[in-house]
Amino acid sequence: MFREEIKVLDCTIRDGGLINNHYFEDDFVREVYKAVAHAGVDYMEIGYRCSDSIMSRDEFGKWKFCSEEDVKRAIDGVESRTKLSVMVDIGRVEKDDIIPCKDSVIDMIRVATYVKDVDKAIDLAREAHNKGYETTINIMAISRAIENELDEALAQIEEETKVKAVYIVDSFGSLYSENIQHLVRKYKKHLKTKEVGIHAHNNQQLAYGNTIQAIIDGANYLDATIYGIGRAAGNCPLELLVGFLKNPKFNIRPILEVISKDFIPLRKKIEWGYLIPYAITGMFNEHPRAAMDLRKTDKKDDYLNFYESMSPIDID
Amino acid sequence: MFREEIKVLDCTIRDGGLINNHYFEDDFVREVYKAVAHAGVDYMEIGYRCSDSIMSRDEFGKWKFCSEEDVKRAIDGVESRTKLSVMVDIGRVEKDDIIPCKDSVIDMIRVATYVKDVDKAIDLAREAHNKGYETTINIMAISRAIENELDEALAQIEEETKVKAVYIVDSFGSLYSENIQHLVRKYKKHLKTKEVGIHAHNNQQLAYGNTIQAIIDGANYLDATIYGIGRAAGNCPLELLVGFLKNPKFNIRPILEVISKDFIPLRKKIEWGYLIPYAITGMFNEHPRAAMDLRKTDKKDDYLNFYESMSPIDID
Repeated sequence: MFREEIKVLDCTIRDGGLINNHYFEDDFVREVYKAVAHAGVDYMEIGYRCSDSIMSRDEFGKWKFCSEEDVKRAIDGVESRTKLSVMVDIGRVEKDDIIPCKDSVIDMIRVATYVKDVDKAIDLAREAHNKGYETTINIMAISRAIENELDEALAQIEEETKVKAVYIVDSFGSLYSENIQHLVRKYKKHLKTKEVGIHAHNNQQLAYGNTIQAIIDGANYLDATIYGIGRAAGNCPLELLVGFLKNPKFNIRPILEVISKDFIPLRKKIEWGYLIPYAITGMFNEHPRAAMDLRKTDKKDDYLNFYESMSPIDID
Repeated sequence: MFREEIKVLDCTIRDGGLINNHYFEDDFVREVYKAVAHAGVDYMEIGYRCSDSIMSRDEFGKWKFCSEEDVKRAIDGVESRTKLSVMVDIGRVEKDDIIPCKDSVIDMIRVATYVKDVDKAIDLAREAHNKGYETTINIMAISRAIENELDEALAQIEEETKVKAVYIVDSFGSLYSENIQHLVRKYKKHLKTKEVGIHAHNNQQLAYGNTIQAIIDGANYLDATIYGIGRAAGNCPLELLVGFLKNPKFNIRPILEVISKDFIPLRKKIEWGYLIPYAITGMFNEHPRAAMDLRKTDKKDDYLNFYESMSPIDID
């Protein structure tokens, strides 16, 4: 698949940070940045930008905040054409902590939102756009969105913002290819001047397959992470996506190298990827929270009881 | 997805046997059979039927041969409506070792073949059909098939056999959903009186996604294995497929239970599933042999060198 407009965004450090409270060592972040840059990936999302007046630095590592100094230190001296992005959560960042883009090492700000908060997301995206950043709006938990509210939100984003792309975020890894096709078509219907993005989770081993489906239907902004790292079941593996895309600007080799050197050892220390409890929350269209909790207990492989605990009963 | 005609075939013991030379304990096979039967799965493939005049019993476990006595012992006393199948390889079974179906515990014989051997496959399938078995022909390494030879083979199978289904076998895990769609459509064009089957490998984490694609395009015979066990990267996970299919005859619970009890411990002893060397052979449309060899060495996680060793150079 070759399409000039396709942009790949690596969110290894940002989504991976959800497993370890954003405590990655500088050296690790630097190795990831080098690999991503040398692989020709278009963007790297290096973390969240939260304000430390709102979230405590005692509880989270530096990649939850992405201060200009910390980001600069991690990437200093690396030759690269990869742009940097950070994600912002509504209510977790003060507008004053978004400095003008010309003074920042960051190129793009991605606003994560639920459908219900779209007005706040639009406000934040406009703020970032007006300060000179490329922007996107990422609609999380899309598998739980109420259809008419989603339609309205998309129409509003098209009308009121200058974001580059609007993302389908399958937070629970519960969507099948048919759902992806339906959503990409819906997005494209509303978003005449914006690109469609896809951020998939791997609960049912469909993150990569669904990303391919989205590409076929016309999505051009593609999220992936090295070795699929990310919360719970993780994300679309960057090595597979780069292996699939035929654009000659991509080179898989630096990604393979950093997996050998840094991700195989890391995977022995922290857990992510396909595991039955995550498959179960995906099937039930639920947040993986309960499965993540289960994995910390000595019942971590008691799948049948976990399945029964998730089954919807006594609902009225 | 609910479609009356859909049949699921579990090939846990048969494809899993390719990892351990078919040395599964009777108790393990029995637990798998119980789980598959209680889950309402239509067929279970319990191994190969090879003739011990051709393949040595010193080199392979009993599930390479599937004698009537061994199969009976493993399933004895289990209440079940699941039919049993065995796979036969061309040149590895004497016709006399295919006893009449009425005297056998086996219901279905699946003939594995390359496109080039289709005449032999047809001969073997007719032999089995005439002895009373349900039959299928499974065309292996389909990603290497030469298009006009495949067309001819399909036309011939349609004309000359009474097989229930003809399978697309993505032996190398190298196909993308577009390829699957193309192949299912091709098969359906030729096979007016037979079903289309899909057997996918998980080298690029696409076994399940491609199986869904095949279902969408009209394939009705679906192979899967418990926890995705199978040679190299393994197969489409049965637990995911059963979670997807909405036919009320299926029940995921026994599969979850046997994974907890038997497959989590087994996975610590033998290796299968998504690993970078298998992803690489999949990308290059190669047999996983070289990757399997690599995994036995102390270079098992040296992905870059392995990638370079697979890259096609100096080809004329």
